[in-house]
Amino acid sequence: MSNGKITFIGLGLYDAMDISEKGINEAKISDEVFAEFFTAKLTGSDLQDIENKIGKKIKVLSREEVENGDIILKSASQKNIALLICGDPMVATTHIDLRIRAVEKGIETNVIHGSSIITAVPGLLGLQHYKFGRITTIAYPEKEYFPTSPYDVIEKNKKMDLHTLILLDIQSDKERYMTANEGIEFLLKIEEIHKRNIFNEKSLICVVARAGSEKPFVCAGEAGVLKNQDFGPPLHSMVIPGKMHFMEIEALSKLANLPMNICKKLQKL
Amino acid sequence: MSNGKITFIGLGLYDAMDISEKGINEAKISDEVFAEFFTAKLTGSDLQDIENKIGKKIKVLSREEVENGDIILKSASQKNIALLICGDPMVATTHIDLRIRAVEKGIETNVIHGSSIITAVPGLLGLQHYKFGRITTIAYPEKEYFPTSPYDVIEKNKKMDLHTLILLDIQSDKERYMTANEGIEFLLKIEEIHKRNIFNEKSLICVVARAGSEKPFVCAGEAGVLKNQDFGPPLHSMVIPGKMHFMEIEALSKLANLPMNICKKLQKL
Repeated sequence: MSNGKITFIGLGLYDAMDISEKGINEAKISDEVFAEFFTAKLTGSDLQDIENKIGKKIKVLSREEVENGDIILKSASQKNIALLICGDPMVATTHIDLRIRAVEKGIETNVIHGSSIITAVPGLLGLQHYKFGRITTIAYPEKEYFPTSPYDVIEKNKKMDLHTLILLDIQSDKERYMTANEGIEFLLKIEEIHKRNIFNEKSLICVVARAGSEKPFVCAGEAGVLKNQDFGPPLHSMVIPGKMHFMEIEALSKLANLPMNICKKLQKL
Repeated sequence: MSNGKITFIGLGLYDAMDISEKGINEAKISDEVFAEFFTAKLTGSDLQDIENKIGKKIKVLSREEVENGDIILKSASQKNIALLICGDPMVATTHIDLRIRAVEKGIETNVIHGSSIITAVPGLLGLQHYKFGRITTIAYPEKEYFPTSPYDVIEKNKKMDLHTLILLDIQSDKERYMTANEGIEFLLKIEEIHKRNIFNEKSLICVVARAGSEKPFVCAGEAGVLKNQDFGPPLHSMVIPGKMHFMEIEALSKLANLPMNICKKLQKL
């Protein structure tokens, strides 16, 4: 058994104020504090804000450093360390993998949870959680290869009348965050290739930008209209609704500026 | 336009330390602070702990008071009020409904997010979020009537090789929180009635108790074995895994004490 410990601490959604008091206290008493910002990023704060809050320096790790785990596992074999992660900490596979390897080495592990885009986005739109199907992510296409998995997931969810939460690619190392505009264009492109009539310019889509901030941007409308709208700085996420309960239509109307004509059409379905 | 404001603040998962600093600060500057504990409950703290943290009295509202909304909407027409809610605040329909009605009255509304069981439980088990299908809830059966919706959801998710997160009934007013044992018994009973071969004593099931606490109880095994195990105090949640990636099997083995014989059987599938 080692003498060390790793605590995976969720930073929450948007800025340095979104971490829980439990998380702050644990980071304060840790021997060493690491952070990674490649699975997600706090766009409302910089590193200095978080360092000021916990009163110590943070070593930011690259994707490679988290994935190979050497630095963290070595440090945690003797010391109590904290790893700060945006959102809720065990959502990305790489953190689960790291935790398993720590346990195998006899290192104690703990998790302090944080708020996550997975519940925040449906909540801000007023859509009901138990009506969501599988989540999907749109990644930047590589060399004009367009993976169909988001399209397939949306199709299956739609068939079951379920909503689809769509996360958008984050490439922090390149300062590149997929916008909802790019996400919509991606889906239109896939439709053009596969023609299964899943998504077109008339499709209803919801966009949430900067969830967790004081004034997140929340809107719903036709894909063909929203693809040209400016949603402001990242992070952006999208939802393609399935069949909606009347209260969900009401929510999109009141909370997400769904245009009245679309609202009336949906209410008649 | 009214002069008031409602801020829906997430308390997070387990105790008074799980709220974000943003949430604490907003509650501190609010004119009046309400809370509801019927959609979920912090089992690791009492009301006094939260009151001490925000430095003011909290008025706890009943289900009826939140649902009819009179007290909150009246107060928020003139004052800045905070409504404290366990988990992430806009997950329950009743809060979305309240928010819509506030917007209709010209009351400003804001959301401060919190950690949620919806991401915490999959994360603690090391299961991958994008492999979860629709969520379901098991409610206490009324008068021996057993609703089949959880059974139907598990069936559909299984057909698509997806995991199912199962939330268990919370009846705070009666101090009654469904245990994972009761949840397992419920599913075995439904199987007995409908015989669609979805769930039996040999089915693999995962249980998480007291997510968000320092030592949550996390385990995986056969339903027939776990139904007799003591998981300790509430809240309990369950997951029925669909098809697992080898790293997920590894995670259940290392993080959830999945017995070695089951682990080996799964690895051969």
